[in-house]
Amino acid sequence: MASTDIIFDTLRATPLFESSSDALVRKLLKDSVSLKLARRQILVLHDDPAERFFLIRTGWVKLFRETLEGSEAVIDILPVGHFFGDTAIFNDNSYPFSAEAAEPSEVISLPLAPLALEIEENPKFALKMLSSMARYRKQQDLELEHRALQNAPQRLGCFLLRLTRQDQSGPVTIHLPYDKTLVASRLGMKPETFSRALAKLRADMALKVKGSTIEIADIQTLAAYSCAACSTEFPCKDIVATKFA
Amino acid sequence: MASTDIIFDTLRATPLFESSSDALVRKLLKDSVSLKLARRQILVLHDDPAERFFLIRTGWVKLFRETLEGSEAVIDILPVGHFFGDTAIFNDNSYPFSAEAAEPSEVISLPLAPLALEIEENPKFALKMLSSMARYRKQQDLELEHRALQNAPQRLGCFLLRLTRQDQSGPVTIHLPYDKTLVASRLGMKPETFSRALAKLRADMALKVKGSTIEIADIQTLAAYSCAACSTEFPCKDIVATKFA
Repeated sequence: MASTDIIFDTLRATPLFESSSDALVRKLLKDSVSLKLARRQILVLHDDPAERFFLIRTGWVKLFRETLEGSEAVIDILPVGHFFGDTAIFNDNSYPFSAEAAEPSEVISLPLAPLALEIEENPKFALKMLSSMARYRKQQDLELEHRALQNAPQRLGCFLLRLTRQDQSGPVTIHLPYDKTLVASRLGMKPETFSRALAKLRADMALKVKGSTIEIADIQTLAAYSCAACSTEFPCKDIVATKFA
Repeated sequence: MASTDIIFDTLRATPLFESSSDALVRKLLKDSVSLKLARRQILVLHDDPAERFFLIRTGWVKLFRETLEGSEAVIDILPVGHFFGDTAIFNDNSYPFSAEAAEPSEVISLPLAPLALEIEENPKFALKMLSSMARYRKQQDLELEHRALQNAPQRLGCFLLRLTRQDQSGPVTIHLPYDKTLVASRLGMKPETFSRALAKLRADMALKVKGSTIEIADIQTLAAYSCAACSTEFPCKDIVATKFA
């Protein structure tokens, strides 16, 4: 019972479900399961038939696809509060990616059928889904832009800046949310490109690195460097909105 | 009158409006304008307030953003039958990109207000919008994947293959839809990277290039080369669906 209460509260804390009908939330809850995932445990496979979608409660979930050659493309690494698998509804009911836990994680597994029904019947809810998709689309646009225009150190700087509270100035210490290899693939970089980028930020931006702890000497200096090759201004306007998408 | 009929038919030929209410189509038509654009003519600017959305009737429209440094990131180059500007509804009613004609083009300018209202009131229409957004999202996922995993010649090969009728085999002649500089920026490549990629395909894939006419010696050989670094199989399943998105 207690765990159902927690799932109820977690769902209600997301923009998607904060104002949806009690009936919908109850239908989802009735068939919800909380899953604990070990690091690298696979949850769904690309093109598999989809009957469930997921909400991340703790940890990080990696969305990826594999090429015919066996290389892996990381599409995204999602933090707490994010849903995934819901777009399978619009993808012939199959997952458009594989998903695995990037770190030990807990996800809530929810049935897709009531969600699909709600979208068809409740225009307000469909509108919420549309807003969330549009926000994601804008982020992907920005990601494509950065891959075309930012060099590797600028892109790494951008990634680090997005982990900080951006209203600060002066020195700031952050912790990488997952290991460096994963950060590299999240940024679409080969490990050696990532290492060179980190070395460059150390030298030019007085970045201090100790394991997964990174000290940025001055946020504004790093922003001036990274955001020169970005079409939106620092602080990033989209960050608050994307905490819970 | 005749031109209104043409606009009516064009709208009805898109998946978004093929089954929408006559009332909606009439409301859009009443306030529609057909615009002829010269090459490089700008239609909307990033962050400008949005009251219109657009359907491409002839030509190509480039969506792009500019960085603080003045570099340009091409987000997409859209063909005939595609809408753009509609997502401004979910972006605080401002355009998430600038748009200009990549070639001499004709676009139909339509009012956003009736579209926003229809989404709120008609769940079936909202669902159509959601499907179209999900399809676009999947394409962007694929684009990000390719930028991470395909080398420049593979990416160019992929671009060329997507211009062919993929059920053919043997030699095929295609025409680049817009100039090479634009193809390069569409693919997120510097002009010199693009030239090297083209030279490599000439040498290894027996590609013949004469101005904007390109002869592919064998589609299947090029597909084996490019699609080895892609997570989806050749022929590309998404192409028919994206002709009119």
